Amino acid sequence: MITMDTIVSLAKRKGFIFPSSEIYGGSASTWDYGPLGVELKNNIKRLWWRDNVHRRRDMVGLDAAILMNPLAWKASGHVEHFSDPMADCKACRKRFKADNLSGLPWTHYCPQTKGNKFEVPGGENCSHCGAGRTLCPDCGKGELTPPRQFNLMLSTRKGAVEEEASLIYLRPETAQGIFVDFDNVLQTSRKKLPFGIAQIGKAFRNEITPGNFTFRTIEFEQMEIEFFVKPGTDEGWHQKWIDERFAWYQRYGIRKSSLRLREHAKDELAHYAKRCVDVEFEFPMGFSELEGIANRADFDLNQHAKHSGKTLGWFDDEAKTRVVPYVIEPSAGADRSTLAFLLDAYHEEEVRGEKRVVLRFHPEVAPVKIAVLPLLKKLPALVDTAKRLQERLGERWYSVYDDTAAIGKLYRRQDEAGTPFCVTVDVKTVGDETRGEAADRKVTVRDRDTMGQIRVPIEEMPVVMESLMAGKWAEVAPKYPAPLVEAKP
Amino acid sequence: MITMDTIVSLAKRKGFIFPSSEIYGGSASTWDYGPLGVELKNNIKRLWWRDNVHRRRDMVGLDAAILMNPLAWKASGHVEHFSDPMADCKACRKRFKADNLSGLPWTHYCPQTKGNKFEVPGGENCSHCGAGRTLCPDCGKGELTPPRQFNLMLSTRKGAVEEEASLIYLRPETAQGIFVDFDNVLQTSRKKLPFGIAQIGKAFRNEITPGNFTFRTIEFEQMEIEFFVKPGTDEGWHQKWIDERFAWYQRYGIRKSSLRLREHAKDELAHYAKRCVDVEFEFPMGFSELEGIANRADFDLNQHAKHSGKTLGWFDDEAKTRVVPYVIEPSAGADRSTLAFLLDAYHEEEVRGEKRVVLRFHPEVAPVKIAVLPLLKKLPALVDTAKRLQERLGERWYSVYDDTAAIGKLYRRQDEAGTPFCVTVDVKTVGDETRGEAADRKVTVRDRDTMGQIRVPIEEMPVVMESLMAGKWAEVAPKYPAPLVEAKP
Repeated sequence: MITMDTIVSLAKRKGFIFPSSEIYGGSASTWDYGPLGVELKNNIKRLWWRDNVHRRRDMVGLDAAILMNPLAWKASGHVEHFSDPMADCKACRKRFKADNLSGLPWTHYCPQTKGNKFEVPGGENCSHCGAGRTLCPDCGKGELTPPRQFNLMLSTRKGAVEEEASLIYLRPETAQGIFVDFDNVLQTSRKKLPFGIAQIGKAFRNEITPGNFTFRTIEFEQMEIEFFVKPGTDEGWHQKWIDERFAWYQRYGIRKSSLRLREHAKDELAHYAKRCVDVEFEFPMGFSELEGIANRADFDLNQHAKHSGKTLGWFDDEAKTRVVPYVIEPSAGADRSTLAFLLDAYHEEEVRGEKRVVLRFHPEVAPVKIAVLPLLKKLPALVDTAKRLQERLGERWYSVYDDTAAIGKLYRRQDEAGTPFCVTVDVKTVGDETRGEAADRKVTVRDRDTMGQIRVPIEEMPVVMESLMAGKWAEVAPKYPAPLVEAKP
Repeated sequence: MITMDTIVSLAKRKGFIFPSSEIYGGSASTWDYGPLGVELKNNIKRLWWRDNVHRRRDMVGLDAAILMNPLAWKASGHVEHFSDPMADCKACRKRFKADNLSGLPWTHYCPQTKGNKFEVPGGENCSHCGAGRTLCPDCGKGELTPPRQFNLMLSTRKGAVEEEASLIYLRPETAQGIFVDFDNVLQTSRKKLPFGIAQIGKAFRNEITPGNFTFRTIEFEQMEIEFFVKPGTDEGWHQKWIDERFAWYQRYGIRKSSLRLREHAKDELAHYAKRCVDVEFEFPMGFSELEGIANRADFDLNQHAKHSGKTLGWFDDEAKTRVVPYVIEPSAGADRSTLAFLLDAYHEEEVRGEKRVVLRFHPEVAPVKIAVLPLLKKLPALVDTAKRLQERLGERWYSVYDDTAAIGKLYRRQDEAGTPFCVTVDVKTVGDETRGEAADRKVTVRDRDTMGQIRVPIEEMPVVMESLMAGKWAEVAPKYPAPLVEAKP
């Protein structure tokens, strides 16, 4: 198991993920996706959208605003309930999650016993005065206030007038945008139950204890589906979605052994949820949530109907009745998924006595699909051939061109970027008139995982690459000879 | 020229764009992209990314956080200067852009002349006391405060401690994320000048007078490039980018007559900008900015170097000197572009005495590429064939299946969605054993723009569609017979 530090360091060094605003000392728990990271994350979002929207007849997409009408958050319960109990230190003003304090015993000067000092066990209140106060675990001096509810929504003010009415929230989840737009989507898409609405977008939570790299951050991106079904069919659909989402991560290369499903216990469930199952990934800090798949019944649509005064539902033409659909919610994190794909792809191995770091991304997930590497920079014909090949392949697969180091180093660089295939163009490819050597018009294709190399005619490259991207190296390679002298693996 | 109302109404009716949180009375100047809108906008972002990042060797991508370290906004000048002069009404508390008031004459009770009442011409201060105050143009009663600078950045607070230090801004532009990450990108991508960094992402501005549908909104999405060049080559690169970006919109179907370039006058330019040219589109309210292309010289990198104490620049190995690059900034709005593509695609025409509304999107821009329409729902073989064809074509082009109306209505529906091609499957396709009619295994392909129809064998469909998507209807159609009896156009 690799450590988080290893991946944080690789992510920065290779341009996957940087600390945000690093030249200003960073911005707590905020991260930027660099050139490789943005491609990786975009690929994950694109695959999710393709598989869940484009390739399903029972799904449409949506992209709702981050800044919604605040009444939506009253209806959803977020204004009242989306909070953690927090205690403030009266001296240093630091704030603590009350939950995290509860395990610690604390020193108490009880007013009921004339200021007697004694120790109260963790998680208990004073048996005399009932106070739950303790000293600050950080400065050790200040008294903590009793726990107060601290809302996790970030807020801002919009408009010209500074009044209470202008207070708005940065959405803490994308889901409510789907519920609020349910009727507009239903009317314009003419869908019938069962059908879903999918959305990818940013959300914000003022997490007090963010951390573990991009696992928990204040700003994050969700990939959420609300799948609306007839009541009574909800349990079957819930199971279908659990199976589908568990399989999805594996389809793009995450090992089954890195994943597990975790059924929520009854006391973990929100009062309206019938059942919830998490897809968990084995992060360095242990198995943690990658995606939650909940059966939310008809809670959300009913809440919004009640608060907005609108009728939200679906008219069943066959049964001639109006139905308030039940909803299954597969809710995934785009940042967590990106981190999971990065962690699971990471491999170290020894090659000829040296450590090779290789990211074994599925070709669809890999940020760059092909690197075209010219073996000699001085020969114009060679450089020209390499550039034209990179452009041609680049029309179909994101390809880069790199001539800034020797071939061994260039290979290692692409291994660390997770590029599935390197293509080298050498003197044999273009020939050398001065030596009377004819051009063979072939290039060397090198497989990232096996480091095997084959020699392929340029004009066959688009077809060969199509097969290789589909994972058919073992089928394709025997048809092409290995290069006479292999370049460094 | 169509009106904005026409497009707002179409956008809502078809599911391109809805008012956000509409069931709660909306959220001022905030809009949601519905099922067709999200596809349209995603296509525009994808094409921009493909053409500017994937198909250029001199560009890499980035995805920086919305919530940056606030010091970045001090360095960029946004904290101090990104503001509008605003005046508040002391009675009704409404706030006005001082600029907008300046044209109006105002009534003044001058303290210097013992409260004498007289009218001051618009744009002028009182010649006696120098005051620039006036009565509120809205309530007509309250006095306005002198204009004060009103910062356009939205702010929020993060973290556990409610102190001044926790104040952060929602970025008002994506550009600064690129400058702040310049060195991290340079180090990891090993690029040499000239090279660019491209980014797509949301930004927020507390616009006092937003409006014109999605043209100016508080929350919006930018597609920005910072292209770094050697000083001295900046003017040539600037012109290249102006030409490229002006051509780009036309490449995907916006008529040249709807576009123009507008050179900024000297007094419009920021003090550091050498030159700025806007690509303007003819919106219903007149030609307005679609994209600004500025030569920002070395202002931004120098500012961040100064404020962060870091060295920001590029070492020229050949000249053995350090260079602070000049930067060309093509900055486009994804929402404005989406609106422009929608407006420019809109056409009304008369077909057999009825009005046809058709969105003539370029196939790459169109939300849906193909609609597969079964002519008869009762025949299982027909439905099955249609669904399988939709799945097969859907692997390559986003395709929908619709059987919820008669064919004439389905065609009109797809015309209004801008779907380039409809494919109908009918009884001839699958044959009718009861009548002894053999299957011809052909489907009817209908072109959105000409409404022409051709009969194509199912197995040839992938190849035919490839040509049609490339705009080759006129070449392809003569090779295939028109259907004997054309379905409604």
